[in-house]
Amino acid sequence: MESAINVLVSEFKAYAGKEGSASTLSKEEFTSLVKSQLPNFVKNSSDPATIDHLMSSLDANNDGQLTFMEFWNLIGNVANKHGGF
Amino acid sequence: MESAINVLVSEFKAYAGKEGSASTLSKEEFTSLVKSQLPNFVKNSSDPATIDHLMSSLDANNDGQLTFMEFWNLIGNVANKHGGF
Repeated sequence: MESAINVLVSEFKAYAGKEGSASTLSKEEFTSLVKSQLPNFVKNSSDPATIDHLMSSLDANNDGQLTFMEFWNLIGNVANKHGGF
Repeated sequence: MESAINVLVSEFKAYAGKEGSASTLSKEEFTSLVKSQLPNFVKNSSDPATIDHLMSSLDANNDGQLTFMEFWNLIGNVANKHGGF
C-alpha cells in the first residue's frame, strides 16, 4: 500500500505545484487533475459544472483552494463507491 | 491515480475478507494490514499498544470494526504527514 500512497501524494503535488501555492490545488489545477487522472472514476469529469460542484463541496473552508486532506476526501468517496462498499 | 486507488481498495478488501464481515476490518485484520502493508508509514507498527490506540481513534462509531471510510482517514493522515503538507 505504501507505494500506492506515494503515487497519490506525488500526483497531488505535481498538480498543486503548477501555480500559486505548491501545497494546494486551485480550481484550474483541480480541473486538470480530475480530467487527466480520474477520467473513469469521476462522472462527467470534463464538464465544468461537475467540477464547480465538486470543488465547492470539497473546499471545506471555502477559500478556493483544496488542501491535500480536502482532496483526500474526494478520492475516499470515489474509492468507496468504486469499491462497492 | 486510478490504478493506485484500485490497489488501496483491493488491499483493503483482501484483509477485510479474512474473517467476519468482508467489508470491514476487525482488530486482527487491521493489525495484520498495518504490519504488512504500512510498516514504514505507521511508527511502531508491530507494537500492540500502537495498534490499540490507532484502532480506537479511527473507529468512529466504536463498534470494533473499521469501515473503508474509517480506514481511509488513517491513510489520509499518514499520507499527509508523509507528504510533508
